Amino acid sequence: MKERVTIREVATLAGVSAGAVSLALNDRPGVSETTRQRIRAAAEQLGWVPSQAARNLAARAGRTDTIGLVITRPARQLGLEPFYMEFISGIESVLEEIEGSLLLRLVRDREQEIAVHRAWWRDRRICGSILVDLTKSDLRIQALARLGIPTVVAGNPGLTGGSVAAVWTDDSAAVEEAVRYLAMLGHRRIARVGGDPRLGHTAIRTRALAAVAEQLGLEPPRSVPTDFSGQAGARATRMLLASANRPTAIIYDNDIMAVAGLAVAAEFGLHVPADLSLIAWDDSQLCRLTHPALSAMSHDVHGYGALAARTLFDLVHHREAPSAPAPTPTLAPRGSSAPPGPRPATH
Amino acid sequence: MKERVTIREVATLAGVSAGAVSLALNDRPGVSETTRQRIRAAAEQLGWVPSQAARNLAARAGRTDTIGLVITRPARQLGLEPFYMEFISGIESVLEEIEGSLLLRLVRDREQEIAVHRAWWRDRRICGSILVDLTKSDLRIQALARLGIPTVVAGNPGLTGGSVAAVWTDDSAAVEEAVRYLAMLGHRRIARVGGDPRLGHTAIRTRALAAVAEQLGLEPPRSVPTDFSGQAGARATRMLLASANRPTAIIYDNDIMAVAGLAVAAEFGLHVPADLSLIAWDDSQLCRLTHPALSAMSHDVHGYGALAARTLFDLVHHREAPSAPAPTPTLAPRGSSAPPGPRPATH
Repeated sequence: MKERVTIREVATLAGVSAGAVSLALNDRPGVSETTRQRIRAAAEQLGWVPSQAARNLAARAGRTDTIGLVITRPARQLGLEPFYMEFISGIESVLEEIEGSLLLRLVRDREQEIAVHRAWWRDRRICGSILVDLTKSDLRIQALARLGIPTVVAGNPGLTGGSVAAVWTDDSAAVEEAVRYLAMLGHRRIARVGGDPRLGHTAIRTRALAAVAEQLGLEPPRSVPTDFSGQAGARATRMLLASANRPTAIIYDNDIMAVAGLAVAAEFGLHVPADLSLIAWDDSQLCRLTHPALSAMSHDVHGYGALAARTLFDLVHHREAPSAPAPTPTLAPRGSSAPPGPRPATH
Repeated sequence: MKERVTIREVATLAGVSAGAVSLALNDRPGVSETTRQRIRAAAEQLGWVPSQAARNLAARAGRTDTIGLVITRPARQLGLEPFYMEFISGIESVLEEIEGSLLLRLVRDREQEIAVHRAWWRDRRICGSILVDLTKSDLRIQALARLGIPTVVAGNPGLTGGSVAAVWTDDSAAVEEAVRYLAMLGHRRIARVGGDPRLGHTAIRTRALAAVAEQLGLEPPRSVPTDFSGQAGARATRMLLASANRPTAIIYDNDIMAVAGLAVAAEFGLHVPADLSLIAWDDSQLCRLTHPALSAMSHDVHGYGALAARTLFDLVHHREAPSAPAPTPTLAPRGSSAPPGPRPATH
């Protein structure tokens, strides 16, 4: 029944010529925006479906509204980190404006990630892609460039040599702000529960931490690598708190690890912030739900995802897009940070 | 350059006839699985790309590997609830097996949700859809049936009248287990911080709670509705704890609200579990990262998402799929639940 609605019927209802309907429904120039909208409304009302020929034409033109996102993480781990879902929700906020869609895949490794992009691009299912979890000399950048896929990376241009459109946050500046704040409170022994050292932004933070600590004359800070999971964050915190030179403050590379760190401090009978200061990263809602609430380097991850999507659509529609820094995370001081107390007895 | 690779070259490299290559690359019967794989490998190696004709054929055949998922929630809220990302990660685990994809949209309301489905289906971008957040007499079910979209709902068949393939968890049985456990510990005044009362599973839990409490001779339990956010969970907990007849145990409809409840108890100077027992729902990693760890109705949300995806592919490929119950959530008792202490002084 749907197939029987003709262009002519749509034209009659909209009060225009069949030619105008054809232009409007095929997104071609030649009709005004208000007429286009009236025609669309008429087509919608009648349940008009494009003919196979028109559909094939659309397929040839390529999808101009679908973003590809492939994430190389075990599926089970993805649900546990607020970062990705907030990033995706930011992308979706832009897709909502333009009625676009997100094509999402989780894969095991970079090769598979490239293969998925190749297949999506070959089948014209995406207009472009956003790359996350950038590494130094990331294989994907060249691979996607060779395929001709419009690409925006969420990562520091220092990692890409400026060869691709990028959105990024200034991780060095954020680390420096966190450490300066703790130093001002009187902390001299600061440690960090970091992320995956293979990732570019983790390495940037590690370097920045060492540099600012040296500059401020603090003890050389320890960075313990993790896989970003809460369990790994708990384990790293236990290790740091059980060490001979226990830190008086710990900076975490995300928020779920900081939540785990807070629980480990309680396990050890340490009072936060009197015995130990904690600073989280990313600052999802989680940080405001603990007691005490977690001080955090507050990062608008939702806005970061939206910026990545906007930059990609600029690239797709205008064939170029300026790389754009996202706002630098800023310190949100809450109840988990304070001047260090007198050194408690050894545990 | 890619366009110049011919079927004949692929055939030569794979050591088969051009006809076999055509069958293999068009996913038609007539070649063995091992031959098909050899041909695919050869095509991959040579960088073979299907001709436009073949691509249009694939478009006409429709996407048989892409699942549509539309979620009606504000984009910002989505990042905060572990449930969705775990559910999606479960869907992705099935997509990984078959090299399928997920098309994801966040929308504001049900009408928009139906419009997105209509457009995806018209453009043959999905093979079927999974519906979440089912309501009583859900408009979407009839709309998608009318469009002819293979659909699986994640929700109790009691809400759909059995008109559509469903996967669901037995929320009544889970509520009963939680309440019987608390009653066995000696609790008589149990409250619940529930979800959105418009959702079917929220209503089912509310009814089950009242029924089992009456059966066990407990005080009539209060259910406070929320929007599932941590903030709303905190607010509801404060209200319950400040009331004249303070409950000795609270059941939460998700885990982020239970984490918030734990912090509110600390704010009020109440000790968990001596002064107040808490039971979370869904049981993401979060519940094991707090101190004390949260007792929870443990629900394999990842497995639930995988079951929904498998059921949908059954439906797409075999035109029918039995509705399938997911395992009932089971109690994971941890440090946040214990017998009620002596009634403390009023706060």
